[in-house]
Amino acid sequence: MTSATASTPATHSAFTHLFAGVQEAYLLNSTASILGWDQETMMPNGGAELRSRQLSQLARLGHESFTSPKIGELIAAAQDVVHSMPADCADAVNVREISRDYHKATKLPSSLIAELAQTASQAQHAWVEARRESNFKKFQPWLEKTVQLNIQKAQCLGWPKGGEAWDALADYYEPALTAADVTRVFEPLRARLQKLLDRIRGASKQPSNAFNELALPIEAQEKFVRHMAKSIGFDFSCGRLDRSAHPFCGGSHCRDVRMTTRYAPTCVFDALGSTMHESGHGMYEQGLDFAQAGLPMGTAAGLSVHESQSRMWENQVGRSMPFWKWARPQLGAFFEDACDHLTLEHLYQAANVVEPGFIRVESDEATYNMHVMIRFQLERDMLNGNMPIAELPAVWNKMYKDYLGVSVPDDRRGCLQDVHWSMGAIGYFPTYTLGTLLAAQLFERARKDIPGLEDGFTRGEFAPLLSWLRANVHCHGRRYRLDELCRKITGAPLSADPMMRHLEAKLLPLYGLE
Amino acid sequence: MTSATASTPATHSAFTHLFAGVQEAYLLNSTASILGWDQETMMPNGGAELRSRQLSQLARLGHESFTSPKIGELIAAAQDVVHSMPADCADAVNVREISRDYHKATKLPSSLIAELAQTASQAQHAWVEARRESNFKKFQPWLEKTVQLNIQKAQCLGWPKGGEAWDALADYYEPALTAADVTRVFEPLRARLQKLLDRIRGASKQPSNAFNELALPIEAQEKFVRHMAKSIGFDFSCGRLDRSAHPFCGGSHCRDVRMTTRYAPTCVFDALGSTMHESGHGMYEQGLDFAQAGLPMGTAAGLSVHESQSRMWENQVGRSMPFWKWARPQLGAFFEDACDHLTLEHLYQAANVVEPGFIRVESDEATYNMHVMIRFQLERDMLNGNMPIAELPAVWNKMYKDYLGVSVPDDRRGCLQDVHWSMGAIGYFPTYTLGTLLAAQLFERARKDIPGLEDGFTRGEFAPLLSWLRANVHCHGRRYRLDELCRKITGAPLSADPMMRHLEAKLLPLYGLE
Repeated sequence: MTSATASTPATHSAFTHLFAGVQEAYLLNSTASILGWDQETMMPNGGAELRSRQLSQLARLGHESFTSPKIGELIAAAQDVVHSMPADCADAVNVREISRDYHKATKLPSSLIAELAQTASQAQHAWVEARRESNFKKFQPWLEKTVQLNIQKAQCLGWPKGGEAWDALADYYEPALTAADVTRVFEPLRARLQKLLDRIRGASKQPSNAFNELALPIEAQEKFVRHMAKSIGFDFSCGRLDRSAHPFCGGSHCRDVRMTTRYAPTCVFDALGSTMHESGHGMYEQGLDFAQAGLPMGTAAGLSVHESQSRMWENQVGRSMPFWKWARPQLGAFFEDACDHLTLEHLYQAANVVEPGFIRVESDEATYNMHVMIRFQLERDMLNGNMPIAELPAVWNKMYKDYLGVSVPDDRRGCLQDVHWSMGAIGYFPTYTLGTLLAAQLFERARKDIPGLEDGFTRGEFAPLLSWLRANVHCHGRRYRLDELCRKITGAPLSADPMMRHLEAKLLPLYGLE
Repeated sequence: MTSATASTPATHSAFTHLFAGVQEAYLLNSTASILGWDQETMMPNGGAELRSRQLSQLARLGHESFTSPKIGELIAAAQDVVHSMPADCADAVNVREISRDYHKATKLPSSLIAELAQTASQAQHAWVEARRESNFKKFQPWLEKTVQLNIQKAQCLGWPKGGEAWDALADYYEPALTAADVTRVFEPLRARLQKLLDRIRGASKQPSNAFNELALPIEAQEKFVRHMAKSIGFDFSCGRLDRSAHPFCGGSHCRDVRMTTRYAPTCVFDALGSTMHESGHGMYEQGLDFAQAGLPMGTAAGLSVHESQSRMWENQVGRSMPFWKWARPQLGAFFEDACDHLTLEHLYQAANVVEPGFIRVESDEATYNMHVMIRFQLERDMLNGNMPIAELPAVWNKMYKDYLGVSVPDDRRGCLQDVHWSMGAIGYFPTYTLGTLLAAQLFERARKDIPGLEDGFTRGEFAPLLSWLRANVHCHGRRYRLDELCRKITGAPLSADPMMRHLEAKLLPLYGLE
């Protein structure tokens, strides 16, 4: 941590006692994170049964430790001291956010937590099977139970006047976010994206997809993406990159970040895009303050800000012409002459092909947010009782026709494609789009603050951007809410304009639409 | 589990409550095991500081959970029921051994446990540095503290009348083992080994060392030893093989066994020997009863029996002529023509070269036990106050001259070579030799019980031996003590005769001494 706003550990005894208590609970969570990573990357199949018991024990102990009355007393004592301090100093932020988390956590009865955890574990198994068989009926009762339990959870937590149950759940992923906020952003965005997609659909010029269809050896791909992650700034002395079925970024703290990617034999972009994305998450985690590990000042602001980091490195950096100017001459070191027939234009075009499809995680920058909007609408409808769960497949398919003009062939490639709802994660999806918007807005600001930013990319100079993110985003931990952070850095509220500018500046020339 | 003596989970409520409580504590230990494995194989350097806190938290919680008064009450209730049952039925064994562990654990104050854990962590760091610099003075104060704390620990635990402090500590590794027992075995064994080594030293014929000096690619070595582990019976759906600086076998339970090996570019025997050895440990763990995981019936009998399994697969199998008859034709699939110039005799000889040296873990079958005897004598002397710690290097070097005829060049290759004392593990070493003796004694019995046992090895048939071990050793968990198990299976007390017969039958012809 080199930022001037970096915090130092608490010195007042009211803080040290509270923070030690919170960090004790956090330590259990950090252990669970390693076990979770291990489960997806290393664990032999035989380990599954005991692993779920290990994780559920840690979750219970962590909850009990954090919600003990002793923590409540320590919060009260710390609040007495904090009143006289600036509201955004590190200690005050820690006390404010710990109190917030504590009062949420203590509203939930242990029995509900246990039932949610157990249902999540069983529903995920049911989902895997239902998805493999493309049979929604097998998952339906579990989704019904998951939604019912989440409604109960929301009722325990409560939500702001005029709001809805979704707001209480979304708060876990993006503090204070409401469905009304999301709707205000999503409705105009949908119209603008639809217009752009209509124009692209009618374009006569088509970018080359050749690089995406080039088979390359997996071992060489692995060395290549590892080199890319290191080059953009991921610190391998404080992290790892492994393989998993679904890429993710986990680990126990800022000095032990575990990210994963996956490899397709026919397309290095699958692994590269995932790696750039997860590296963005990973570098955010690595930028947090170790002295504050387990405290709000050493924790990411929320999932939208997290996603802004991953999307920026994936899209604003990894799909840009300057990046490929730097990357192209290096391909030979990994793939010998396999890519020699592809020009710089070929690579850049392959990185930016637009193709409406059924699968969110395989979608391009222009259609991605449509997938997110569909899920947001559907999870609200499920929670509000506006749509019987049995109708999910039909409604899903109709929305894909409306939003993206595609006919979903089966539930496996339709409403069963994502893991989130089976895990009980309702209220999560919109952070993907909010983060994508924030990425574009932050990047416009970084471009102003850092002279020659993108020119530097052509020489492999990514440190200026990372330093800028460390100083403007990472060092603040949970000091600011999403919109507050956005205004503070960019001088404006979160807006879709920068992302639309980013897309149009790139896609219109690529499709000959200027 | 296919054995007729396999146990079923408890049904009486006095047992189910007790066993559930014990398994809850065990679950924390099983989590710690995964974290310990991760630390040695996967964790980036940055993770070290928080990891020691995670592990110490789990150790504390595990101890608190196991030593709670509630467990004491449940033990008393279970003992009331168990009186009317056969002493060696599964439930009775579980109650007997849980009670034994509980009464030991509750004798130790938490403060001493915390101090031991913290000293171990710091002493290991000091040892690593002292060893790197070959500077015993840096480690001396930590060893002094470790010995003092272990004397305190022994005093808390107490020891049998006529015994000594060492007995109390050894009990953790081999239940009920005493220094007097060990001495009775070691003294005559030393004389017999010394005589054999003297004969070998004077031999005119020398086995070929060519295979040990052949450089082979590490990647090919890795595939080769993995194939060997699988062929002898290690189940990769319930375990892993990775790399670490020092090979070990860990993991959280019988369906998730984590073993490691290491690779030397110039000698595949380093990796193969370690892999066969750790596979022996791993297959023992995999042979334990999952339904009894965390209970004594699902736990290995002790470290001597554990070592008998690893040494048998490493020595009686992996250094035998029948094994190499089977293995040699397969070398080409991994190493192309690199080994073609080596005959079967070359391979067998390389596996059995005797060469007195300074380093225990690199030593051969004939000199190995001399290394163990030296450590046993020294740790007793340290505990009994017969040798000031400052004199350890001088005494160590003198013993190496006396026992093995070698001059230790420096402390790095002398008294600083092993990790055990720095971890606080005093009373551990003799189990290596007791296990080696048991391996030979069990193997003689297996040879009688399984017609054509070694002939089968020439065809890669290792399942009969593994099944025999499952039925005679693995299924019993902690039902029998070392000597009891040995008598039950072989009809005789543990003896050095079978190992001496094994060594002489192999080494005398190899050195032209018949």
